[in-house]
Amino acid sequence: MAEPRARKVVLTEDEMPTRWYNILHDLPTPPPPPLHPGTGQPVGPEDLAPLFPMDLILQEVSGEQYIDIPEEVLDVYRLWRPSPLIRAYGLERVLGTKTRIYYKYEGASPAGSHKPNTAVPQAYYNKKAGITKLTTETGAGQWGTALSFACAQFGMTCEIWQVRASYDGKPYRKVMIETLGGVIHPSPSTLTASGRAILEQDPHSTGSLGIAISEAVEVAAQSPDANYALGSVLNHVMLHQTIIGEEALLQFEHFEDWPDLVVGCAGGGSNLAGLTFPFFRERWLNNRKVVIRGVEPASCPSLTQGTYAYDFGDTAGMTPLMKMHTLGHDFIPDPIHAGGLRYHGMSPLVSHLYETKEMEAVAKTQRECFDAGVLFARAEGIIPAPESTHAIAEAVRAAKAEEHGSILIGLSGHGLIDLGAYQAYLAGELTDHTWADDELKKSVADALTRLPAIPA
Amino acid sequence: MAEPRARKVVLTEDEMPTRWYNILHDLPTPPPPPLHPGTGQPVGPEDLAPLFPMDLILQEVSGEQYIDIPEEVLDVYRLWRPSPLIRAYGLERVLGTKTRIYYKYEGASPAGSHKPNTAVPQAYYNKKAGITKLTTETGAGQWGTALSFACAQFGMTCEIWQVRASYDGKPYRKVMIETLGGVIHPSPSTLTASGRAILEQDPHSTGSLGIAISEAVEVAAQSPDANYALGSVLNHVMLHQTIIGEEALLQFEHFEDWPDLVVGCAGGGSNLAGLTFPFFRERWLNNRKVVIRGVEPASCPSLTQGTYAYDFGDTAGMTPLMKMHTLGHDFIPDPIHAGGLRYHGMSPLVSHLYETKEMEAVAKTQRECFDAGVLFARAEGIIPAPESTHAIAEAVRAAKAEEHGSILIGLSGHGLIDLGAYQAYLAGELTDHTWADDELKKSVADALTRLPAIPA
Repeated sequence: MAEPRARKVVLTEDEMPTRWYNILHDLPTPPPPPLHPGTGQPVGPEDLAPLFPMDLILQEVSGEQYIDIPEEVLDVYRLWRPSPLIRAYGLERVLGTKTRIYYKYEGASPAGSHKPNTAVPQAYYNKKAGITKLTTETGAGQWGTALSFACAQFGMTCEIWQVRASYDGKPYRKVMIETLGGVIHPSPSTLTASGRAILEQDPHSTGSLGIAISEAVEVAAQSPDANYALGSVLNHVMLHQTIIGEEALLQFEHFEDWPDLVVGCAGGGSNLAGLTFPFFRERWLNNRKVVIRGVEPASCPSLTQGTYAYDFGDTAGMTPLMKMHTLGHDFIPDPIHAGGLRYHGMSPLVSHLYETKEMEAVAKTQRECFDAGVLFARAEGIIPAPESTHAIAEAVRAAKAEEHGSILIGLSGHGLIDLGAYQAYLAGELTDHTWADDELKKSVADALTRLPAIPA
Repeated sequence: MAEPRARKVVLTEDEMPTRWYNILHDLPTPPPPPLHPGTGQPVGPEDLAPLFPMDLILQEVSGEQYIDIPEEVLDVYRLWRPSPLIRAYGLERVLGTKTRIYYKYEGASPAGSHKPNTAVPQAYYNKKAGITKLTTETGAGQWGTALSFACAQFGMTCEIWQVRASYDGKPYRKVMIETLGGVIHPSPSTLTASGRAILEQDPHSTGSLGIAISEAVEVAAQSPDANYALGSVLNHVMLHQTIIGEEALLQFEHFEDWPDLVVGCAGGGSNLAGLTFPFFRERWLNNRKVVIRGVEPASCPSLTQGTYAYDFGDTAGMTPLMKMHTLGHDFIPDPIHAGGLRYHGMSPLVSHLYETKEMEAVAKTQRECFDAGVLFARAEGIIPAPESTHAIAEAVRAAKAEEHGSILIGLSGHGLIDLGAYQAYLAGELTDHTWADDELKKSVADALTRLPAIPA
């Protein structure tokens, strides 16, 4: 008979953190502020008020170290949180490594990813402000699903523009969103001026997150009862996601272990931020040693190949200018990449941490990622989201090399709505664009010539 | 600010039950034994040895009240168990009911249903007996997924025959099984004599669980290294599933509540048995008052409309004869029914409990079930498996009528691989066969004329 061993730590509801962590309070150097594209001056609350409720605007600029999570939000979190931290004994065995590997699993949420961590408070604060409808964009669909779930919890309506490439390629995502009560359109659509402008140039456009953001923002700005919700990039989104890392810290205490490498996938940056920001705090304030590394797709390498510059968050140029690693706001990532993570920019906070060398980043091809994803599925049982396979691939590489004693993987979601991508992988049909391709380099260089000028 | 309220109880790994409950020990009257179809005598261990390892055969006939769960099985269970018991505050609110509603959620398993509870021990005991390959059937696919997962955990191969109607209608189920390392064929197939016989009669056969069982049994019986694994019906399968109800009992203690109605969906009976058998024990030994009710599909109503008789478990007549509620072993359920639960018979233990009036049963149309499923998804966030919607529909009806103070729903799995069925429902395309249809009545009456004779 084998000896019992702890597989996972699941905290009780009473042990769930009740505050989000605001990394702005502890950053060694402050990040550059967002600027108004018309004046070149830092944006104020009034600039954001047409799109966001005041509670979220205040969180966006808050300097407080911690922000209390409202009880109404905790109540919905408790449907699935605290999420488990699992020791990956199966993966360690197939790798034959001495490295201890853990994963923090956010796929246990009703929407199947980490996205409800911010969808729920965003719906709550909007509801509190009298808003009855939220609009948003979604790429692979994780965010749209999460916001549909959150809106249903608070009796609100949810209208979503999904990048056309994903809308066509993942029909079950639409069904999932509609079952949860959301309304979903392919983007670019004929419902908005921004969508129509794109379709005039290219009637067969496969879309991009930047275009879909423009459409959702346009619709929200036109209605006093509707606001816009963003699933990544902004400070308040990063803030809400920190419950992931805060829980993980408590769970490592139960395991009596400490990860000296933390890896998360990075698209807009919210999963990476949520997982890692509390670990930065432990490094800065408690001198804990930890390497923090983001993993992005080789076909959309904003951190590792983008420029650190002021750029728009959307394609039509409707958002404030944010200082971030960007491939250019009108760069359209190739739809061959199966997962999400296909966004031209990176969260300003994550960009700042990377620029100041607090955080590392690597880019990976999707074949390396799916290799790791299938290995993980057979070893641990969970089929990871294509996004999450990026983090797994880096952890697999590092564990084989035994570079670290203990690794924490951010397993941001499951891949059950992305099985079409696994089907393509198993059939040997996945291809990749990498920085070695002249086509990708040229496409980014072109887009970067159109970075906005900053008014003096 | 709202007051905190407990949403769910998640036990720690240390609190997880370490024994399965064997209802045979406590049954008020013993159930009729399975018979050898050639001799009409009760089957002995030697009759089952070509298909099952001795550990499982002994469990099949054991009279012990409890059976220890091996540490190797507990170790895999800990990947997702204990599963949560969740108070359905959202559903209670939309129903406007005073009834307290809870659901025991088995969809948190890697395979997305309760099926790994028995797949894991079946793989383990076979591995221990030197078996390297398991064959099985699957209908909607939950069982095939679970056995693929379990085989991967123990380094075994898994070969699956899936009912053709589901194989064609749910392509992502195949991808999920292949990603987990399983091999899957549509049934009837040309790989077996049983499959070829069916295809000769009907080249366009959409298959049935009975046919798929015949194919898997045939292949296992031909190889000394391969065994067969059944996902429902047999006593040892019911036994393994009792961890669901045992956990629920502990969790109700934390909630300081007691369900006076327990409802579960019933196809072959394993989910219903696993959820409810420990509650029967509490009724019999501790005088706890509880109504226990199975919910089956109106298109395949074995409990409510079948005959209680000795019949084969499969279509080709290769299994022992079991006394059960049956629609006839060559009854082929109409593939219009979207979920699983399409099996001609019912677990002999569940049948015995129904026949002795210990358990109630009702049949429901799939439209009533999906109505409840979508209501549940918007209220609780989780999209239930089509099978599980049967239990939800009955709970919704009883809660609206406020017939009980507290209801426990067995939420056997999530529906993320069954979104095609939700798509059909949302498009208004789901139809039903019910007992009011002469066609269904005639089809069952025909099949019942072919019940096997018992040798004297």
